[in-house]
Amino acid sequence: MNDTLKVITERYSCRDFRDEMPSDEILQAIADAGIKAPSSMNRQPWRVIVVKDSELIKDIEEETFARISEMEDKTLYNRIVERGGKVFYTAPCMVVIPVFPDERCLSLIDCGIVCQNITLAATSLGVNSVICGLARLAFLDDCKAEEFSKRLRFPEGYVFGISVLLGYANTSKAPHEPDKDKIIFIE
Amino acid sequence: MNDTLKVITERYSCRDFRDEMPSDEILQAIADAGIKAPSSMNRQPWRVIVVKDSELIKDIEEETFARISEMEDKTLYNRIVERGGKVFYTAPCMVVIPVFPDERCLSLIDCGIVCQNITLAATSLGVNSVICGLARLAFLDDCKAEEFSKRLRFPEGYVFGISVLLGYANTSKAPHEPDKDKIIFIE
Repeated sequence: MNDTLKVITERYSCRDFRDEMPSDEILQAIADAGIKAPSSMNRQPWRVIVVKDSELIKDIEEETFARISEMEDKTLYNRIVERGGKVFYTAPCMVVIPVFPDERCLSLIDCGIVCQNITLAATSLGVNSVICGLARLAFLDDCKAEEFSKRLRFPEGYVFGISVLLGYANTSKAPHEPDKDKIIFIE
Repeated sequence: MNDTLKVITERYSCRDFRDEMPSDEILQAIADAGIKAPSSMNRQPWRVIVVKDSELIKDIEEETFARISEMEDKTLYNRIVERGGKVFYTAPCMVVIPVFPDERCLSLIDCGIVCQNITLAATSLGVNSVICGLARLAFLDDCKAEEFSKRLRFPEGYVFGISVLLGYANTSKAPHEPDKDKIIFIE
């Protein structure tokens, strides 16, 4: 198994970060990996926004938590309360990937591609990560969406696509066991 | 730059394959990388379908080309005719990733993540690839969608997500120049 396959195999979703910001050099290398992602017709309908501003991360987290607390199904809310109300696992850094939306949502595929370049580049550099779709909730309210889009410097017309939390694991865990039944060969 | 970052940097979209099927061992390693992809809530709303059946690939290609030939805008049609009517660049192998659709198309993000694991694993193993969204056109007609979903063994309710063509480059090319302006740091 070569290094890339090892990185793919060893990557796991970290949900417990310690208080240590990766260096700018490392964050730049991760962001550079993000923008090397292929996209449909090379349109690159995304940005890679590396957020180190803890106030901004906290504000997005609080808005996300507020939306979660309003959900009828309390499963997610209770789980987050149990872990101290932290939606973003105390990650010091958040990469937000906004996309230019299209009718059939195909830019979300491009978004996922960027996102995986980021998590794999991070893993290869010893940085832990977790893909965070929940932050989408902070953009549900028009007013908040406008505020956060502005503070995150989304280009005109761009909307939240996905985010990746980055940092160093406080406690690590094993990757998921892959489900071999999901592979089908047609000869 | 470590090996994974090199693979991310050197990956390019191959559009000219020679007639050589990667070994089963290699295809298995690529598919294994695919199913190691993270997904929202670990739902894994996808399959990794490795198609080596040249008849099936040809049939999907013909249907895709038929849909392209009906388009009002002839740009794509003319480009494909120029290169001999080949939509799939004579790739010997096609990985189809069907997804279980959801209202907000979020499974397309998961789909993109799998797709990038596949292209990077392939690159690391010396296999060239190109992500192919055009094959989606073969699934537009209900009757054809049903036929191909069956032949590709999509699980009930799954639809075409994305595909990745695999093989060995006949002629290689340089990766796109990344657009550094797409990165924003917020400190």
